[in-house]
Formats: sequence, C-alpha cells, structure tokens
Amino acid sequence: MAENSNLRLSRRRLLGGGAAALAVAGTTWGAATLAQADEPSPGQAVVPFHGVHQGGVSTPPQAHATFVGFDLRPGVDRAAVIGIMKMWTADAARLTAGMPALADTEKELAVDPSRLTITVGYGPGLFTALGLQDRAPAWCAPLPSYPIDRLEDRWGATDLLLQICSDDPVTVAHAVRVLTKNARSLTSIRWTQKGFRSARGTAPEGTTMRNLMGQVDGTVNPAPGTTDFDSLVWSDGADQPWLAGGTSLVLRRIRMEMDTWDELDRPARELTMGRTLSNGAPLTGTDEFDEADFTATDRFGIPVIPPGSHIARSHRMHEGEQFFRRAYNYDDPPEGEETSNSGLIFAAFQRDIAAQYLPVQQRLSDFDALNEWTTPIGSAVYLIPPGCEENDYLGSGLLK
Amino acid sequence: MAENSNLRLSRRRLLGGGAAALAVAGTTWGAATLAQADEPSPGQAVVPFHGVHQGGVSTPPQAHATFVGFDLRPGVDRAAVIGIMKMWTADAARLTAGMPALADTEKELAVDPSRLTITVGYGPGLFTALGLQDRAPAWCAPLPSYPIDRLEDRWGATDLLLQICSDDPVTVAHAVRVLTKNARSLTSIRWTQKGFRSARGTAPEGTTMRNLMGQVDGTVNPAPGTTDFDSLVWSDGADQPWLAGGTSLVLRRIRMEMDTWDELDRPARELTMGRTLSNGAPLTGTDEFDEADFTATDRFGIPVIPPGSHIARSHRMHEGEQFFRRAYNYDDPPEGEETSNSGLIFAAFQRDIAAQYLPVQQRLSDFDALNEWTTPIGSAVYLIPPGCEENDYLGSGLLK
Ligand code: HEM
Ligand code: HEM
Repeated sequence: MAENSNLRLSRRRLLGGGAAALAVAGTTWGAATLAQADEPSPGQAVVPFHGVHQGGVSTPPQAHATFVGFDLRPGVDRAAVIGIMKMWTADAARLTAGMPALADTEKELAVDPSRLTITVGYGPGLFTALGLQDRAPAWCAPLPSYPIDRLEDRWGATDLLLQICSDDPVTVAHAVRVLTKNARSLTSIRWTQKGFRSARGTAPEGTTMRNLMGQVDGTVNPAPGTTDFDSLVWSDGADQPWLAGGTSLVLRRIRMEMDTWDELDRPARELTMGRTLSNGAPLTGTDEFDEADFTATDRFGIPVIPPGSHIARSHRMHEGEQFFRRAYNYDDPPEGEETSNSGLIFAAFQRDIAAQYLPVQQRLSDFDALNEWTTPIGSAVYLIPPGCEENDYLGSGLLK
Repeated sequence: MAENSNLRLSRRRLLGGGAAALAVAGTTWGAATLAQADEPSPGQAVVPFHGVHQGGVSTPPQAHATFVGFDLRPGVDRAAVIGIMKMWTADAARLTAGMPALADTEKELAVDPSRLTITVGYGPGLFTALGLQDRAPAWCAPLPSYPIDRLEDRWGATDLLLQICSDDPVTVAHAVRVLTKNARSLTSIRWTQKGFRSARGTAPEGTTMRNLMGQVDGTVNPAPGTTDFDSLVWSDGADQPWLAGGTSLVLRRIRMEMDTWDELDRPARELTMGRTLSNGAPLTGTDEFDEADFTATDRFGIPVIPPGSHIARSHRMHEGEQFFRRAYNYDDPPEGEETSNSGLIFAAFQRDIAAQYLPVQQRLSDFDALNEWTTPIGSAVYLIPPGCEENDYLGSGLLK
C-alpha cells in the first residue's frame, strides 16, 4: 500500500511538473516505468500506444468497453478528418499512458489508465465521404442482410468508430468525454454502446468470460501472440498497402431473449450450445479446452453435440474460416414492458471479412439452434488502421 | 493464484452439492468462511446479509450500483407485497453470499458476489397503495419542488426501490435480472439507473471517489462505524417503531452540464466548490481532510472560501443538519445532439429527511455557485426498512 501511494504521489508530482510532464507525454516511458515498479497498483497498468498495431485487439480484454459510432458532418473533407486523427492520436497517446490529454479539463481523471486502450475504426461511409472508395478492400462493405436480422437504425453503420477499453469505468468515461467533445464540430454521435465483463481480479487472469446467458464465451479463439492469430487477424497489406498491420472489425449488437431463454432447462441449454454450462467443456469432453468431437454419437447413434448447436454450426469448415472474438456484455435499462435489455456486443476481428467471417455468419443465419433466443439488432463493419509510431498519426497511410 | 483456484473449486463443489449447498444457503457461513481463507479472491468477498441494518448503506461503496425503481401494478395488496419481500429476502440472502438464487437460471453468474449488497426501499406510494399511510413518518413525502429542479417524470418517485451494488458488473447484472424478473407479475419497472465509481483496487481502499467533474466527492461525510454515523443515519424507532434500525434515502439524479463547465478554468472551478481539484483540500487548507475555515479572508478581506461556494452553502449550520452521502457517477449514451449525458446519482441516507436533509437542500436551491452547472432531473425518497434476521423477511415489521 505504501508502495502504491508513493507511486501515486510521484505520478501526481510528474503531472504537476509542467515541462517535465510534457517531456514524457509523447512516449509511454513515464507511465510504463512507474507501472513496472514493484507492486504497481492495477490502476497504473499501461498498454503501450505506439507500435505496428493499435491496442484493444490483441490486448487481453479489459473489464469495460465503450463503443462510440460517429458520422461525419456534411462537408467534412479529408483535411478535416486528418485533423481529427491527429487530435485523437495525440490524446490517445497521452491518455493511455496515464497523462492528461492536451487541454484536459479533468486531468485528475487521467492518472489511472488501468490498461486503457483507444482503438479507431473507419466505416465504409468514411471512404465514400472522402472519395477514397478505391482505397478500401473490396470486402469492406455492410454485411449482407440476413433473415435472422431485426436491425435497428439506431445501432447501424457509422463513418467512424472509437473502441475505448479499460479496467476502470471512470477512466473509460473520461476518455470518451475527451475524445468525443474534441471532435464534435466535425462529427455527430450516432450511438454509444457500453459493455462489460467481470471486474479485473474477480477471476484469475486469462479466465474466459461468461455472457449473460451464463455461458463460458470465448473458448475457441485464436490466441494473441501466436502466428495463427497474427496471420488471421493482422493485414499483410495485400488488399491495400496502407492497411498492413491493421485489421477489420464486425460489430454486431445481439439481443438475448432472456424471458424465453428462461423457459429452457439446463440440458436443453447445453444442447443448444453444444457445451456445458458448468465449465464450458464440449459435450464430448470434460475440460473447457478439450477439443469438441463433432462426430461422436451416443449408443443410439445420435450425435452428442447436436449438428444444429451453436458450436457445430459456427465451427470452422477449414482453417481460413476463423476470426478473433472479443465480445462484451451489455445490460441497458429495459424499455417499455421489457424485463431485461441485455445481450452481447459481438466484436470479431479478422484480416478479411469476406473470406473469414461471412461464411460462418451465413451458416449461422441458415441455422443455429441459438437463433431462437438471440436477435441481431445492430450491425456495422470497420477497417481498423494499423498502429502508428511517435510523430505519426493513426490513418496517415490512408489519408495523407 | 493457486489459493484462489482452490477457493473457486471448493465453492463450485459446494454449489454442485445439492443438499450441502442448501444447508449453508440460509446463512452467510459458507461464503464468509471461504472469503476469510488467506488470500481470498476479491470476487469471493461477502457482505453479511442478515443483521440489524440492511447492507449497502454503511458498506464501503462498491464500484458498481444499479438502482431500480418499481411501481406496484394496480390491485397489488399487502399479501402480494409480503410475497415480493419474502422472495427478495430469500434471493438476496443467497446471492449476497455467493449462492445462486432459488430457481436461478444462470447460477454460474452467482458465484462471485464481490461484496454484493441488495437494499430494499419503500416509496411514499407504497404506503398509499397499501393504506398504510399512518405507518410512514410524517417526513416521508416527495421533496418540495425547488426552482432549480428540471424534474423529468421518467426519473420520478416509485413505490419500491432496489439498490444493487457490487465490485463486479456481471454480478450486478445477474442480481438485477433475478430480482426484477421474479417480481414482474406484481410490479413494473419505472426506471433503472446505473452508476459507477473507480474499479476496486484502482486506488487504496478508503480513497474518496472523484465525480465526472473531476472533483474529490465525499470528503465531509459521517464515517460508518462511529456513533455520529449511527445516530445520524439509523432510525431509533421514535418516528415509527417498525423503522428502528432502518433509515431513509433521498435519491436525486443530477445532470452535470459538462459543455458549459468546460468553459471554466481551474481557479474558477475551485472557487465554485471551495476546494482544490488536485486533492480536494479546502481552499483554506492543504490536505483533503483539513477542516474548512469559512471565516478566513485574504489580505483584501475577501473570504478565501466564497460564501456562495458549494461547500459553504452545503456545510451544516448545526450538528443535526447532516446526512450520509453515497453517490455514484452516471454516464449514459448521449441523446440527440448532446456530447455527454452524465452526472451524479446523488444518494443521501439520514434518519429524518425533514430535520437533516431539507434545510441543506433548501439552502443549495436558494443559492449554490455550482447550480449553474448542475441540474436535478430526478428526485425520489424512500424508507429503507431495517435488516432482518434469518427466518424473517425485509419489511416484516411494517407489513405483517
Ligand atoms: C448473442 C450471440 C452469441 C452468443 C451468446 C454466442 C455464444 C457462444 C458460446 C457460448 C460459444 C462457445 C464457447 C466458445 O468457443 O466461445 C460460442 C462459440 C463460437 N461462436 Fe458464438 N455466440 C454468439 C454469436 C456468434 C456470432 C454472431 C458468431 C459469428 C458469426 C459466432 C461465432 C462463434 C464461433 C466461431 C465459435 C467457436 C466455434 C467452435 O469452433 O467451437 N457466435 N459462441
Ligand atoms: C451534481 C451535484 C453535486 C456535486 C457534483 C457535488 C459535489 C460535491 C463536492 C465535490 C463536495 C466537496 C467534497 C466533499 O465534502 O464531499 C461536496 C460537498 C458536500 N455536498 Fe455536494 N455535490 C452535489 C450535490 C449535492 C446535493 C444535492 C447536496 C444536498 C442537498 C449536497 C450536499 C453536500 C454536503 C453536505 C457537502 C459537505 C459540505 C461540508 O460540510 O463541507 N451536494 N459536494
């Protein structure tokens, strides 16, 4: 505790230090050094901002995420978008390092980044607005409409996206405020989606999250840091050179129909998913990470994992049909006579939406036992530009 | 970590144990014992449910709070309300102990209470609906309307309140779901207000929270566990015998006008409050807990703490004018052209609203420099019945 207080004090002193604070602000040095002192407080944990990739993709998911969808105001041109990008880059570099943004009006809310990441995305509309259609990969387009969809305009495609994640909800609120207000003359906010997982420290690091249906969610997923992950998620620039080191995001808001789901008993729920509720093991195994055996049958010859279950339908038919899921729960105030207004902010990252994501989504739309209790109400796709080095800004490869 | 995993495993085993799980469910024994093992995971921390007072008042504020306002459906009588109370009591006793509720459909979401508390409140409407007006203290009535108010019906008085707090947002969501769905045939949800403070562990325990204006908020506040607190907060039953051990809650939703607040520089902000932004010290002191000197003047004879500042106006004129503030930040999706939709879910607990709270609220309404940047948009009052022992239910003293 004394350690932590000192840490906080020296940070505060740094912040008060004017020139000194500015000197470290461009790098993550100040915060990173402090965070590496022995027994750092979790509030001081920093995810480096600069680099080949943006943070918030391979970063172990933080407890809180706010997604903000922006539209460009009419007449906003490329120079203006460059202005937004320079501002967001400068502010994000500072905030993620635990430094106040430039002209931060609540700078005390910036001192505990708690692994803050700020991730910028570009919707297809941005390319149209700027006349840059030929710089977007062919597969960068709204998803086809599926018969399962009940899409609401209020959760639809937007020109720009910010994904802001931290283990501390106050840090998220502050970063959202700074970044949105600084862009408000050029953009309007279409929607804000707030998501959460268990608090940091509730479960051992690396524990797979549970969604609000109670399921272990995120087991079969490329592991950040592996070559699999790198080749599935990060663009090599073959589609568009400027995108190298970037990726794409499919963001779907999927409502859970909790009232009808309630009518299902546990065995029926487990058959719907193909996995147990207790620890998320496939119905053919005992541990969460046991590989599912989709060919196993019981003594009557009936498949143990139903072919219509969510995991049977979503399982890759070949290695290329994979993406990285990084979803968040949402639980908003019920509207009208609703008892619950909750579900999943489903977020899938992949190098190529058409090759990797669409076949799986199509299969799930054609049939998925889970569909009866889940309803897609929002859908948007974004290109996630690569990270940037110091003295550069996010999206420069596309915009300059 | 190994410790924690064992803890989790033994808890899971307990849960699986049918009869064994039931045997400990009525008490906090199971969870409390586990939570006291060395190095317990923060998820396992338990606030005892049974006792003289309800939890969630003197409990050190958890990181997340959801307030749910319910109205009784037409025709719901005393027997039906007793039914709700018995159900909520049984479910709350189990959930706060880290046990699934009775017939919990997502029981895996119940295993990490993370200091879950569930607090029940009765609005004046409940007494009217049940013909129990003579059992409510005279001061149990909506606040007078103040010229500063811009109250919206959607955040108004309700018959019943649940305040659900935990350090884990998934735990809160699960508890809200269980308790609201079980009451839905008899109640309708009028509003849900979600609040937060910094994540558990970001700052050392006992650190005063910061609100979204960046201020240290909660410094001058009766300290739970002191005789001061006890006599200011807990009813001795003089007003109404059944209320002994209970209290009352004034719940105000107060919007922060962040866009105009932004135009104020730091010195002006500090004069508005009467305290510094850096550490919350009064302008006449250096440390957060220094006592404010409202008589101090500078060399021109001008008061150092402006007489119109928030703390000068809200400071008690005598010892009886005190209450316990346990507020939460809110930050909801902006509506329309708003950039932010944030503020304070202001929660004040006191034995007697008329004697302790109203004079201060009246003074702030008459004048408070902060009023220019804050707008009360919701207001409700509740009686918080005392806690209950095992085999009893919340509110039995009033209802049976
Ligand atoms: C509310 C909607 C959804 C819920 C509640 C849900 C839940 C789950 C759960 C519990 C699992 C098993 C554990 C795991 O491996 O993560 C799973 C697996 C999976 N889900 Fe979903 N999911 C939803 C929507 C989707 C969507 C829209 C897609 C993609 C189009 C998708 C793709 C996958 C994939 C690829 C797997 C792994 C399958 C395997 O190979 O075993 N899910 N999902
Ligand atoms: C959004 C609205 C409000 C904000 C942002 C706010 C903020 C603050 C802050 C920063 C302090 C100084 C630190 C502290 O002692 O906690 C304070 C003190 C206080 N506030 Fe508020 N407050 C708000 C509304 C209210 C309301 C509605 C009341 C009661 C009617 C109230 C009663 C008090 C009291 C009694 C104190 C302690 C004064 C003293 O004796 O020093 N506040 N408030």
